[in-house]
Amino acid sequence: MKNSRRNFLKAITASSVVMPMIASAKPLNKDGRKLNIALIGLGYYATYQLAPAFAQTQFANLAGVVSGTPSKIEDWKKKYNIPEKNCYNYQNFDKIIENKDIDAVYIVLPNSMHHEFALRAAKAGKHVICEKPMAVSVREAEEMIAACKKAGVQLAIGYRLHYEPFTNEVMRLAREKDFGKVKFVEASFGFKLRDTNAWRMKKAFAGGGPMMDVGIYALNASRYATGEEPVSVTAQWVKTDPEIYKDIEETLFWQLKFPGGAISSSTTTYNGNVHRLFVSYENGNLEMSPAYDYGPLKGKTSKGEMNLPVIKHQTAQLEAMSEAILNNRPVRTPGEEGLRDMKIIEAIYKAAETGKEIKL
Amino acid sequence: MKNSRRNFLKAITASSVVMPMIASAKPLNKDGRKLNIALIGLGYYATYQLAPAFAQTQFANLAGVVSGTPSKIEDWKKKYNIPEKNCYNYQNFDKIIENKDIDAVYIVLPNSMHHEFALRAAKAGKHVICEKPMAVSVREAEEMIAACKKAGVQLAIGYRLHYEPFTNEVMRLAREKDFGKVKFVEASFGFKLRDTNAWRMKKAFAGGGPMMDVGIYALNASRYATGEEPVSVTAQWVKTDPEIYKDIEETLFWQLKFPGGAISSSTTTYNGNVHRLFVSYENGNLEMSPAYDYGPLKGKTSKGEMNLPVIKHQTAQLEAMSEAILNNRPVRTPGEEGLRDMKIIEAIYKAAETGKEIKL
Repeated sequence: MKNSRRNFLKAITASSVVMPMIASAKPLNKDGRKLNIALIGLGYYATYQLAPAFAQTQFANLAGVVSGTPSKIEDWKKKYNIPEKNCYNYQNFDKIIENKDIDAVYIVLPNSMHHEFALRAAKAGKHVICEKPMAVSVREAEEMIAACKKAGVQLAIGYRLHYEPFTNEVMRLAREKDFGKVKFVEASFGFKLRDTNAWRMKKAFAGGGPMMDVGIYALNASRYATGEEPVSVTAQWVKTDPEIYKDIEETLFWQLKFPGGAISSSTTTYNGNVHRLFVSYENGNLEMSPAYDYGPLKGKTSKGEMNLPVIKHQTAQLEAMSEAILNNRPVRTPGEEGLRDMKIIEAIYKAAETGKEIKL
Repeated sequence: MKNSRRNFLKAITASSVVMPMIASAKPLNKDGRKLNIALIGLGYYATYQLAPAFAQTQFANLAGVVSGTPSKIEDWKKKYNIPEKNCYNYQNFDKIIENKDIDAVYIVLPNSMHHEFALRAAKAGKHVICEKPMAVSVREAEEMIAACKKAGVQLAIGYRLHYEPFTNEVMRLAREKDFGKVKFVEASFGFKLRDTNAWRMKKAFAGGGPMMDVGIYALNASRYATGEEPVSVTAQWVKTDPEIYKDIEETLFWQLKFPGGAISSSTTTYNGNVHRLFVSYENGNLEMSPAYDYGPLKGKTSKGEMNLPVIKHQTAQLEAMSEAILNNRPVRTPGEEGLRDMKIIEAIYKAAETGKEIKL
């Protein structure tokens, strides 16, 4: 019994789903207007991360669902009180153009389907929120940006970390240079995934392996930690379990050079657990581990522990994106942010394949 | 006053000089024979690390000193009760051949002088203990090994970590595979050094920059963590402060491929503080930080904190080397161990210069 509080604290720490958002100085939704969003793809992330996040937002409303599985739609309708007219399958999805009660879609499908549904949503005049990686190629990403521009809708990419305090502190340090200029970055994100039935393990669905899934966080981190865009990349890879990691990479290293002189070194893998960001500045350093998980994140700098609010990333992201779109302001992580990562990812794969330094 | 014990514990933790060795199951020196060693080079490491270590050994005796500075010799004579006849300068050093009271030398000179003094000591029939890096080139290292072999003396390289428990646990995990095979290694060691007068900052003395000084620890770690010898290397470097790091590298990344499929990624630098070893195994991982300092080292594995004895590395190294030499048994870290690192270091520099993958 005496451990009950500790167990409770452990439980809420382990499950970011029930972690309350500590909103500080957030604008209040005075007129009560909400962005009505239809979720496309009702898998793990939609079910266990996004749906609970909606319940905590002022500006986002879970208004509809799109799924290829009728039983899932029935479950969601009941659980979230979603009217039948706001439910679609992949075939009749384009009829959403006639639905005035849906303002935007949030694409949470396997990566290879992002492009198709972003284009269909844009054509239907709906704003597009899309999970990372935004697409499986630079060409697709560029077409998504063009389609949304043409349709006059916003395109926002689900870089949830851009909306939470630890990552914003890393960005601020790059900008305000408390510790001087960045000298080098070590950023790695990998986890153990061996389920050969998972869509993430199939190139046709994922567009690649851990690089597309979690490596993109380490890549994005090296960009926001330096506040710069890399100018060249080298990369190396190895596959020790080819029967498991059939048509995707297993473990991949890459290194980036930045115009200000900083360099970064990164690992991504489906064959090991690592989730660290280390930034070495002129006069200090920062280390976060975990640096990219749903939370709580943890970090320290040369000045001590990073004592920052622990928030639910998905809630903060939905809130900020919805408020921006409602007020016709640019979102913080637009398609262009996703495109930059896609260009570097293509270069990383090319560098690993050729063994050559690829200019960006 | 109530903090006095904590302050005392802090003091002994901070200063590894006074940290007692926890000897477990160490052989007793029954006949009291000691290896009589002359220290060559009376700088920081000899003064503050090796001299106090001698006082704690059973098998090593600080019998003589060799220095280019007469006042230092006077100080050491008084402080350690060293007879005049066991003191040499760099000019008259070769007369040590006539001195029956010196069995071995320990070379603690700038890297570029290791080769010369190892050859002179071997010619004088003295066993050679030499700090890492053993030399500034593969050619020099090979000549040192050949000279000692010809003279029938042992050549031991000062890889102090090979003699302390945390590192031995990393080696054991590679050998006994508690967590399965190694998949990848991240090993980085760098510190802030900007004193342009330091010999470590001059290629003529150091043979290179941080790679030769601390990078060699990260390199050596990737080898003992995998238990394998790498087959190829790629490397990248950058210099953001060329006026400080004139003729040496500033920050250097390298990556190694191992025959069992593992790969390693490393950073070394004089422009930032990082000292971490991360090993990802099939079924677990190990993280040490600090991983290479004088101690106390700290680490955890998938099974929890690494609760291992904290010992003074230099004492353990001197003890084991002296006992082996006295008993005519091979030392744990012979010239061949140093040569392996030298070959890889030359390949790392070549890979960084050419941008090509270099086979080993």
